[in-house]
Amino acid sequence: MSTIIYLDNNATTMTSPEALAAMEPYYKEKYANPSGIYGFAQEIKKDIEAARETTAKLINASPEEIIFTSGGTEADNMAIKGIAYANKEKGNHIITCATEHHAVLNTVKYLEKHGFTASYLPVDKYGTVDIEALKKAVTEKTILISIMYANNEIGTIAPVDEIGKIAAEKGIYFHTDAVQAAGKLPIDVKKTNISLLSASAHKFHGPKGVGFFYQKKGTRMHSLMQGGHHEKNRRAGTENTAGIIGMAKALEEAVFFMNSPEKKKIKELRDRLENAIAEKIPDIIVNGNPENRMDNTVNICFKYIEGESILVYLDFEGICASSGSACTSGSLEPSHVLLALGIPHKTAHGSIRFSLSKYTTEEEIDRVVSSLPAIIEKLRSVSPLWKERKK
Amino acid sequence: MSTIIYLDNNATTMTSPEALAAMEPYYKEKYANPSGIYGFAQEIKKDIEAARETTAKLINASPEEIIFTSGGTEADNMAIKGIAYANKEKGNHIITCATEHHAVLNTVKYLEKHGFTASYLPVDKYGTVDIEALKKAVTEKTILISIMYANNEIGTIAPVDEIGKIAAEKGIYFHTDAVQAAGKLPIDVKKTNISLLSASAHKFHGPKGVGFFYQKKGTRMHSLMQGGHHEKNRRAGTENTAGIIGMAKALEEAVFFMNSPEKKKIKELRDRLENAIAEKIPDIIVNGNPENRMDNTVNICFKYIEGESILVYLDFEGICASSGSACTSGSLEPSHVLLALGIPHKTAHGSIRFSLSKYTTEEEIDRVVSSLPAIIEKLRSVSPLWKERKK
Repeated sequence: MSTIIYLDNNATTMTSPEALAAMEPYYKEKYANPSGIYGFAQEIKKDIEAARETTAKLINASPEEIIFTSGGTEADNMAIKGIAYANKEKGNHIITCATEHHAVLNTVKYLEKHGFTASYLPVDKYGTVDIEALKKAVTEKTILISIMYANNEIGTIAPVDEIGKIAAEKGIYFHTDAVQAAGKLPIDVKKTNISLLSASAHKFHGPKGVGFFYQKKGTRMHSLMQGGHHEKNRRAGTENTAGIIGMAKALEEAVFFMNSPEKKKIKELRDRLENAIAEKIPDIIVNGNPENRMDNTVNICFKYIEGESILVYLDFEGICASSGSACTSGSLEPSHVLLALGIPHKTAHGSIRFSLSKYTTEEEIDRVVSSLPAIIEKLRSVSPLWKERKK
Repeated sequence: MSTIIYLDNNATTMTSPEALAAMEPYYKEKYANPSGIYGFAQEIKKDIEAARETTAKLINASPEEIIFTSGGTEADNMAIKGIAYANKEKGNHIITCATEHHAVLNTVKYLEKHGFTASYLPVDKYGTVDIEALKKAVTEKTILISIMYANNEIGTIAPVDEIGKIAAEKGIYFHTDAVQAAGKLPIDVKKTNISLLSASAHKFHGPKGVGFFYQKKGTRMHSLMQGGHHEKNRRAGTENTAGIIGMAKALEEAVFFMNSPEKKKIKELRDRLENAIAEKIPDIIVNGNPENRMDNTVNICFKYIEGESILVYLDFEGICASSGSACTSGSLEPSHVLLALGIPHKTAHGSIRFSLSKYTTEEEIDRVVSSLPAIIEKLRSVSPLWKERKK
């Protein structure tokens, strides 16, 4: 595996050695169920509460506003269904955006079949949500605005402060899927007026199968799962102690990195990749907002060829990238995000996302830069669409 | 921690060193998201499918009938809500039992507030569900019977074959919460006519935060969470790869142990503990079915004193036990399970559960036997109820 060049960090990341080291005791000597009343269990309970404090602090929340979950999808379902079911006397209208992750989109679509209505806001060509459309979409029946913090496919960062302001003015709950943003962008739930926030550990070098959810004090919502009294009756199920501890450690590291001079390395490498591709390969489109974009993400349409074929050739050279969201791979449909930007079907099919991490090196980027032009040329040389274009 | 005597294995178990060793590569070099199309990810996808086959085989299911979840609570919610919402045109009546885990009871209670009706079957003094009551409870509107395989507090094993037969005859789905049974009792979903089964890894020396769910082919149900296409659209969310691999390993080990001569050690030690207590301490009741009971579980009411006080004294000596379900600890209510057996409130308050594992030793049991009588005597000596009784 040593020759792998892993550029799919928006799909998942390597668990950091520090996070894994923090987790291991909870599989070994500290294995008790934190609900036990004996000291052996209560010590672990304390460790979980310390992890909750760490997590809360990093997004400017209070510890009691943090709920541990099994990941981002659970948190998104929890937020949207939880608000919908608990506030349906007030209204049945939900506002979201065309470029959301499927954990949000499909949850809203599910609710549309069960008595709720929804508005899917459009985005501009950079994937930025239309704030005027948001203002117009709000009705007396609107109970929730769910807009992702940063897009997983193209990296565009939403104008969350503006959205939060509108939500606060109108007295509507604001949920943000911050799965891509948490640990990579500074988040302040108070300043941004966020009512609910979803995050997932495995996107910031924590383990898979665990996430955290912020629920602003006083937010009226139902639980997604019924059961024991865990998480103050808000999320039943024995705590994933190792996962929680590993997540808090990874988040701490991520925030430390975010504030370190090292941080700019990711953007520099991403720009190096993006610029080299733009220089060496004709007929491409760089997707996403040129200004407000995640430092680690570049999404490019290579016209006249299929993204999946590019990925296969990259894979031959040990390069891991993605043609959209990992969660929809295997689907033959082009990315709903790229279509929402106004990119034609055929062009959207030719998109590739490279997503970097703090472990990405210059050598790796240079290997991609040296491999990719030949791959694109080879695929175009056999593409009927490319030949068509040349006529 | 070396002096801890851990007898709370129905609350959770230590992750086995073998399961942890199997997990570690998925935090280190095998970290890809299994949805990726490159070889690095596809290898991990294959490992997950192998884990699915292992899991399926051990309960006589097909691999495509196994869904990985975040644990038992999620699986119970998934089964009960999933069946209820998908079959409400057929009927709105659910049958369950008074002694179920709260992940089942509270889910059914939640549904009662949302258009469904429920029957809570009584149990006999041993905690065995009343089969005649089950037959009588079935109506034309009944869509689901949810009865746990083995009880977490008292260890009573349900007559699942009889329940399965009734469910099959009446054409009703049968869900069983097998969280305590999986990995400890042989399970054959086909022979027992089980439609849905919930299990949790951390009860059989696997990691916390992961479980598996059996959904018989052709069972009509909704998903609990919407999102990506994971688990064939039945459970969205990036797979907890390390957890799944660790669970399969732990399950394999558990089934191996179950079929080994070593297995009888647990029952022998449990009986040694139970008999010694019965011999040395007056005024006790041993709860649970004397015949059909989990080998590792003993639940005893020590009359005239509080279970919580006993636990505190045991804790002083490094002995970890429980006064009921870990998931309801902190609650001042006595166990709903013991109350369902017909045990009076005051007596139920004095109950202690000891639950053993394959790691429990004779020395540990003997230390409990030598400590407990003095603890009980001390507590009774200051108990007004005990003095009252003597008059």
